[in-house]
Amino acid sequence: MIANDIVLRVRYGETDKMGFVYYGVYAQYFEVARTELIRKCGFAYDELEKAGVMLPVISLNIKYLKPCFYDDLLTIKAILKELPGVRISFEYQITNQQGELTTTGDTTLIFINANTKKPTKAPKEMIEGLQMNFTNKISQ
Amino acid sequence: MIANDIVLRVRYGETDKMGFVYYGVYAQYFEVARTELIRKCGFAYDELEKAGVMLPVISLNIKYLKPCFYDDLLTIKAILKELPGVRISFEYQITNQQGELTTTGDTTLIFINANTKKPTKAPKEMIEGLQMNFTNKISQ
Amino acid sequence: MIANDIVLRVRYGETDKMGFVYYGVYAQYFEVARTELIRKCGFAYDELEKAGVMLPVISLNIKYLKPCFYDDLLTIKAILKELPGVRISFEYQITNQQGELTTTGDTTLIFINANTKKPTKAPKEMIEGLQMNFTNKISQ
Amino acid sequence: MIANDIVLRVRYGETDKMGFVYYGVYAQYFEVARTELIRKCGFAYDELEKAGVMLPVISLNIKYLKPCFYDDLLTIKAILKELPGVRISFEYQITNQQGELTTTGDTTLIFINANTKKPTKAPKEMIEGLQMNFTNKISQ
Repeated sequence: MIANDIVLRVRYGETDKMGFVYYGVYAQYFEVARTELIRKCGFAYDELEKAGVMLPVISLNIKYLKPCFYDDLLTIKAILKELPGVRISFEYQITNQQGELTTTGDTTLIFINANTKKPTKAPKEMIEGLQMNFTNKISQ
Repeated sequence: MIANDIVLRVRYGETDKMGFVYYGVYAQYFEVARTELIRKCGFAYDELEKAGVMLPVISLNIKYLKPCFYDDLLTIKAILKELPGVRISFEYQITNQQGELTTTGDTTLIFINANTKKPTKAPKEMIEGLQMNFTNKISQ
Repeated sequence: MIANDIVLRVRYGETDKMGFVYYGVYAQYFEVARTELIRKCGFAYDELEKAGVMLPVISLNIKYLKPCFYDDLLTIKAILKELPGVRISFEYQITNQQGELTTTGDTTLIFINANTKKPTKAPKEMIEGLQMNFTNKISQ
Repeated sequence: MIANDIVLRVRYGETDKMGFVYYGVYAQYFEVARTELIRKCGFAYDELEKAGVMLPVISLNIKYLKPCFYDDLLTIKAILKELPGVRISFEYQITNQQGELTTTGDTTLIFINANTKKPTKAPKEMIEGLQMNFTNKISQ
């Protein structure tokens, strides 16, 4: 398991007229959280694309337990429970500055060869980077 | 059951560098689809808020079967299978101009009294409007 | 001069906690308006990119005269005053369902050869399409 | 004059199919930069709204000198050249990790009394906070 936290402040443009963070914005928060988890393991998402691999999201699930608000300082934990094969899955937990769990979710992404458009295995360097950081306990 | 289709063209700003519609943008597409379903039943979402009722999303699930692209003309079907109580759930199906099913999903929203911040029942006028449009077959 | 109107309904996710359309969202509205002006002249923006021409925006100016709100039905007029050379400029006027002028703006975009990354002239087919629709009065 | 820099990493969802940061996204970058300038002066934008003052943007101008890309680490400098009256104006300069100036812009915002919807002066506490941080040279 690899877990990594990022901290992110809610932008005004991310709120809606209810005063809450718009429910579609969390997809971006999750994206930033998983990108930074991968980067901490020595692999930039950008390199993936340069190596001819695309990684589109194939499923997204979110539970909105409490609203998040403008200017909130959110901690977004991304968790990787299994090393990737053709797919990679992340879980997410968002907590606000009061320590309240506001949001949980998960995404599954699929490695695609940019030329053939067919599913492909995760690049070896990426798996190695993840493997080196893999633990059996939460690394928080 | 009530089903309602809207047609929507993908904006340039909704794509990402992969050339696909960004996975968080579908939340907006779903929002537009359910708003129009409710409007067809004689009730504007805006009136809801004016009546002191908020309707935040409490869960979102999306399956991305095929990518959508810039300038695609997407048909987004929103489906209401049950009349709302304190919650209202919608299912969604997106098809592109080739008739391919690209995306499925669902959302659950909860009616909240804007003053007490407590869950509340759907407004009577809204339930009546939905009831009048309710059928046992897909109204496509 | 070519002028073309589109009508567009404000999405919930486009508002901010002030209850107004977020000021950055108008860039998307302008994008949709100029895309449809070009399409009316027989040229899809998408073909441009397939022909190896990119058209990034190099300047944007907006004046927000009145706020726009959720569910507003906005008319966005795009105006092309001069045929493009290496650059193409559009002006915009947004009016709401009460006929009030809410927003004005303009953008300049530059034609770039996708291979050389150098400025290039607008494609001949595009200029011809625009020329055929060019009038000395507003074509509304 | 007050100048304040923030550093911000470009999100995947902020790019478009050209691979550039979408031109409307810079409005959010500017928003974050001016919010942090104000916060550094001891005043949270959020307090403004709690005090019954709204601060909508009335003009936005952007020049896109060079594109910004996914994963770029951008430095966004917000500059306040004059103390606010009824209006407050900011200038912005964005530089990328290579030190290249990519984008310049400015915004003007207007203080509005949330009850009367009329223009009002900037709150005294805010002016005092800004005044204490005001210098005649760039404070970078």
